Amino acid sequence: MNAVLENVREQRAGLDPELTRPLPGSRKVYLGDATRGLQVPMREIAQSATHERGAPKPNASVYVYDTSGPYTDSAQNVAVRSGLAALRTPWILARHDTEALTFPSADWTRRREADATLQAVRFPTDTKPRRARAGANVTQMHYARQGIVTPEMEFIAIRENLNLAAWRDVSPRGARVHAGHTHGALMPREITAEFVRDEVARGRAIIPNNINHPESEPMIIGRNFLVKINANIGNSAVSSSIEEEIEKMVWSTRWGADTVMDLSTGRNIHETREWIIRNSPVPIGTVPIYQALEKVDGKAEELTWEIFRDTLIEQAEQGVDYFTIHAGVRLSYIPMTARRVTGIVSRGGSILAKWCLSHHRENFLYSHFEDICEIMRAYDVAFSLGDGLRPGSIADANDEAQFAELQTLGELTQVAWRHDVQVMIEGPGHVPLHMIKENMDRQLEVCHEAPFYTLGPLTTDIAPGYDHITSAIGAAMIGWFGTAMLCYVTPKEHLGLPDKNDVRDGIIAYKIAAHAADLAKGHPAAQQRDNALSKARFEFRWEDQFNLGLDPQRAREFHDETLPKEGHKVAHFCSMCGPHFCSMKITQDVRAYAEARGIADAESALADGLAEKAKEFQNAGGELYQPD
Amino acid sequence: MNAVLENVREQRAGLDPELTRPLPGSRKVYLGDATRGLQVPMREIAQSATHERGAPKPNASVYVYDTSGPYTDSAQNVAVRSGLAALRTPWILARHDTEALTFPSADWTRRREADATLQAVRFPTDTKPRRARAGANVTQMHYARQGIVTPEMEFIAIRENLNLAAWRDVSPRGARVHAGHTHGALMPREITAEFVRDEVARGRAIIPNNINHPESEPMIIGRNFLVKINANIGNSAVSSSIEEEIEKMVWSTRWGADTVMDLSTGRNIHETREWIIRNSPVPIGTVPIYQALEKVDGKAEELTWEIFRDTLIEQAEQGVDYFTIHAGVRLSYIPMTARRVTGIVSRGGSILAKWCLSHHRENFLYSHFEDICEIMRAYDVAFSLGDGLRPGSIADANDEAQFAELQTLGELTQVAWRHDVQVMIEGPGHVPLHMIKENMDRQLEVCHEAPFYTLGPLTTDIAPGYDHITSAIGAAMIGWFGTAMLCYVTPKEHLGLPDKNDVRDGIIAYKIAAHAADLAKGHPAAQQRDNALSKARFEFRWEDQFNLGLDPQRAREFHDETLPKEGHKVAHFCSMCGPHFCSMKITQDVRAYAEARGIADAESALADGLAEKAKEFQNAGGELYQPD
Repeated sequence: MNAVLENVREQRAGLDPELTRPLPGSRKVYLGDATRGLQVPMREIAQSATHERGAPKPNASVYVYDTSGPYTDSAQNVAVRSGLAALRTPWILARHDTEALTFPSADWTRRREADATLQAVRFPTDTKPRRARAGANVTQMHYARQGIVTPEMEFIAIRENLNLAAWRDVSPRGARVHAGHTHGALMPREITAEFVRDEVARGRAIIPNNINHPESEPMIIGRNFLVKINANIGNSAVSSSIEEEIEKMVWSTRWGADTVMDLSTGRNIHETREWIIRNSPVPIGTVPIYQALEKVDGKAEELTWEIFRDTLIEQAEQGVDYFTIHAGVRLSYIPMTARRVTGIVSRGGSILAKWCLSHHRENFLYSHFEDICEIMRAYDVAFSLGDGLRPGSIADANDEAQFAELQTLGELTQVAWRHDVQVMIEGPGHVPLHMIKENMDRQLEVCHEAPFYTLGPLTTDIAPGYDHITSAIGAAMIGWFGTAMLCYVTPKEHLGLPDKNDVRDGIIAYKIAAHAADLAKGHPAAQQRDNALSKARFEFRWEDQFNLGLDPQRAREFHDETLPKEGHKVAHFCSMCGPHFCSMKITQDVRAYAEARGIADAESALADGLAEKAKEFQNAGGELYQPD
Repeated sequence: MNAVLENVREQRAGLDPELTRPLPGSRKVYLGDATRGLQVPMREIAQSATHERGAPKPNASVYVYDTSGPYTDSAQNVAVRSGLAALRTPWILARHDTEALTFPSADWTRRREADATLQAVRFPTDTKPRRARAGANVTQMHYARQGIVTPEMEFIAIRENLNLAAWRDVSPRGARVHAGHTHGALMPREITAEFVRDEVARGRAIIPNNINHPESEPMIIGRNFLVKINANIGNSAVSSSIEEEIEKMVWSTRWGADTVMDLSTGRNIHETREWIIRNSPVPIGTVPIYQALEKVDGKAEELTWEIFRDTLIEQAEQGVDYFTIHAGVRLSYIPMTARRVTGIVSRGGSILAKWCLSHHRENFLYSHFEDICEIMRAYDVAFSLGDGLRPGSIADANDEAQFAELQTLGELTQVAWRHDVQVMIEGPGHVPLHMIKENMDRQLEVCHEAPFYTLGPLTTDIAPGYDHITSAIGAAMIGWFGTAMLCYVTPKEHLGLPDKNDVRDGIIAYKIAAHAADLAKGHPAAQQRDNALSKARFEFRWEDQFNLGLDPQRAREFHDETLPKEGHKVAHFCSMCGPHFCSMKITQDVRAYAEARGIADAESALADGLAEKAKEFQNAGGELYQPD
C-alpha cells in the first residue's frame, strides 16, 4: 500500500503538487457507461449540512463540468514523461477508416527526428501517427452527416447535461427557472447525443479532436451548448522551457480552460508541441503560420505554400485539434487598413499582409484553401478561420476591412463544409458595447451559423493592466448573443507576458463571462451552481461558499484576511457588517416568523394589521443573534 | 522660494505622499471664468511627439474629468486639519436664502460638542451650519424649476464637456464618430448650462451638494451626462481610525470616485464624518439609519421617528449631500421575501423589516416621508431612495418583492418632487444579463425617469473573490441602458473588508464599466481618450500609453515585469511578439506603402494587380525593422 502510494507520488512528481491537488472539497467522479469506455469526468463538490432549527438537513453535492483531466484525479497516475492515457484510441480504431503511418509524412518532422542533438528535449514515444485511409473522410462532421452518432458525441451529451439529474432533488428554496431568453439560439431542455450529432452535421457546432490526439476528452463548441473558453500559452520574446509550457497548460485546464492554444514561436517549437499534446486533456489549437515563418527565418516574403503545407501536415500528425488559418486576409482588403488608428494588429494577419504586398499576389492560404481542406479531413483538424483584419482599437471596430474579411470567411466556410471539414470563425478584438450585437448578427448571417470564437472583445481601450476586465464585459455580452467560445485576455494584455497569476486571473474572468452568458441563455443546469452557492452564503456555510466558487483558494484567502480564525468560518455573521448588523441574520428571523405561522397566514396577518402577531414575534425573537 | 516649498510640504504632510502626488504625466488645470469663481478642474495628460518619417509631430494634451480635488494640485496647499477651501460659499451667500445657525439644531450634535472627552478627535472648526431661511427652499431643483441657472450648473456644464474643445484639432487618423445608439437617453452634442438646468428641473438629473458642504466641486448624476461611480468607505466590525477613513476617501477620489458613501457604523461616527466632509472634494452620501441604530444600541425595535429625525438634521448640518432612505420597505412587502433564496440582504432593509415586524406598523420612513422632505429641502440634501428589498442572488432577481418596492419608490419620487427635493433611486444587486434591461426599463417607467443608482449588478453568484468583475459586467450594461451612477463592488465583496488595493481594483473596474457605457451611449468626448491611447500604443509611445490609461502605475509595473529597461519604453516592439513578429510594425509598413503612393493609388494598384508596384515595395521595405 505504502509502496503504491510512494510510486504514485513519484510519478506525479513531474509536476508541482499545486497543479495536481484536487480543488478544495472536490473529488473527480465519472458518469456514463464505463463498459463502453464512456467515462465522462465531473467534479463533485461536497457540501455540509444546513443547521437551522431542528435536525441538520443535508445538502446534496454539486457536480460541475471539469476540464482538468486526470491531473486532479487522486486515483490516477499521471506522469508527464508517459503522457496521458489514449482514451479515444479504441473508438478511432473501431471505425476502420484510418491507418498508422510507418514514417511521419512531413519533411520537417523527419528532419527533427533524425537530429540526434534533440534527443534530450524529445518526448519519448514510439507511437506512429495515423491518417485517413485513401479516400476516407474521418471528421466528426462527416460521420454526423451520415447519421452516425459517435462515442465522442455520446460523451459530449453526458458532459453537457452535467448536473441536471443530480440536481433534481436539490431544488433550493425559492429557486425559479427563468424563461430562457435566447438570442437566435435554440436551447434544448436536455442535450441528447442525437442533438449533438445534428448540430455538428449542420455546422452549428464543432468537436475539435484530431485522431492523433486520442488523449483528449471530447468537448463541443457551439452556441447551443455551454459557452467555452480558450487560454493561450507559448513562449515568445522571453524563452521559456518545455516544463514551463506543460505547467501552464495543466494550470490553465485546472482553472477551467476548455481548449488551449499553443502560440509558441521560440526554438524547439516542434518538440514543445509534442509534449503539450501528449499531456493535454483538452483540444490544442495552433497558428501554423507562426512556425512556418520560423522556418524562413522570419522573412514573411519567403513563405511558400510548400513550406506551409508541410507545417500543416507536421502539426496534424502530432495531433493539433484546430488550426487558425488567416485565409480571409485577401490582397484587395489590405489597403482598407491603411487609414485605421491601429492598422493590422493580428500577428498572422500582418505576416500575410506583408507576403501579399511583397509578391503582389493573392494570399496563398486563400488560393490553396481546397488543398488545406484535403489535409484537415484526413486527420479531423478543425478550421478556426482567423480574423487577421480584426480591429485593434475602439476606433476601428466594425469597419470595412473587418466585415470584408468576415464575408470571405463565410464563403470559405461553405468550401470547408463541402469537404465535411469542421469550421469555427474567429472574431474581434476591440468593440464598444453598442456595436457587439451587430458583430454577432453579421457573423451568424454571413458565416451560416458556424460557431463564433471571439477574443474578448475589449469594450474600451483606456485600461491597460485591466484588459481581462474590459474584455470580460464584452465577452459576457457576445457570449449571451451567441458566441460559442471566448478567447481569454489576461491583465498583461498589451503590456507583457502573462505569468501564472495572470493566467489564473484571465481564466477566472472568462469563466465568469461564459457562465453569465450561460445563465442569460437559459442553460437549464447553469443556475443550479449559483443557487447552491447563494444558499450556502445565506446559511453562513463559509466552507461551502468557498468551495462552490470558481476560485475557492482566493475566496478563502480574502475571507481570512479579515477574520482569520477557524471559528469565524462557522460564525453566523461576516466581517462586512459585524454581528450586530447582519442583514442575512435578520432575514432568517423574518423567515422564521413567516414559517412559524405559514406564509399565507403571515401575509394575511400583516395585511390585516393584527398587532397581536407582532407582539408574538417580539417576544419570540427577543434574542436576535445566536451566541457563537 | 524654498521656505514656501517647505511650508507646502509640511502642510501636505498630513497625508501619505502616495495620495497627493499628481498622477504620472499629469497636471491639474482649470477651465472657466476665474473672475466669477468658476474654476473647473481637469487633469491634463501631456503626450510626447510622434516619431515617424520626417520631423516629429506633436500630440496635443488630453484633458480628462478629474475627481481628485486639490490633493493632486501641486500648486495648492492642502492640510487635513484645516479642511478644503469652501469654494461654493460665495454662491450660497449670494442667494440670500440661507442663514447661519448660532447652535446646531440636532440634540445629538449639541451633546457631542459638549463632551470634552471628544476634544482629541474633533475637527477643529468654528464654522456655523447653515439652513434655509423660514419658508425658503434651497434645492438646485427649486432654482432650476424657477428658470435659474446657478453657478453650480454652469460649473457642471463646463465639467461635462471636458475635452471637446481641446480635441477639435487633434483628430487622430481614422477616428470616426459613432452614430450614438442611445437607449432612451438623449445625448446632446454639447452640454450647456441651460441643458443642465432643464434636466434638473424635470428630475432627470440631480446635483448633490448640501449647502453645508461648500468644499465640494459640483457634479451631476443623470443619464444624459457621463456615467458616475460611487465608492464606499467606513469602518465596521474592525474599527479603523479617522485618519484611515480620510485616506480612503482621498484614495477613492484619486482613482476616480465621483461620490463617496461613508457607511461607518463604529464609534466616533459623528466626528469621523465631520473630518471626511471637511476634506472631501466630492459629494458624500450616508445611510442615516445606521447611525440611528447605534443610538439605540443596535436594537432595531427601539428606533423611533424622533431619533431618526434628529439624526437626519445632525447629518444635514454637517453637510451630507445625499441620504439613503429605505422608505419603500413597506410592511406588506416583507413576507414576499420569505421564500427567497437569500431573503433581505440590504442592511437598511433588514433593520426596517425588523422594526416593522416588531411593531406591526408601517415603516416610519414611509409614514413620515413628507416630514423628511421638509428637512431635505432646508439643506439641499438629495434622496437616494434605498432598495431595501433588492435581490441578493440570481435566483431572487426581478421578483415580486423587488418590483413592489420599486413601485413605491416611484410614488415617493413624486412626493419629493412636490417639495422640489432631488431624488435618485437605488437598484440591485444580483441580476442575470437577460434581466438587466427589464430592471432599467421598469425603473424609468415607474420612477418617472429619476436617475438610477445601481449596485453592480452582479451577473452571477459563483465567483466570490472576483465580484468586482461579475458586477462590472452588469454595471457596464445597465450604465449603457441608462443608469446614471454605479456603486462599486470590490474583490472582497461577500468575504471581508476591502483594503486599499481592493478599493483601487473596485474603482478601476467601475471606471471601465462607466466609460464603456459612455462610449456606447455615444458621449461625444468619451472616445477621444480611447483614440489617443490607441494611437500612442500603435506608435510605441509607451509612456503615453501608460499615462493615458486609468491606472498608469499598474500599466508601467506590468510592462516592466517583462521588459524592465528604460530603453524598452522607446522600443519599436513589445514583449508579446518580440521584435521579429511585431504586427504593429508590419502595419506601419503597410501604411507607409499606401501613403507613399496615395491610398487611392495603392488601392487601384492592388486592384489592378500591378506586380511592378509590389517589386517597388519589396525593394523599398527590405529592412522592416528600424534599428532601435
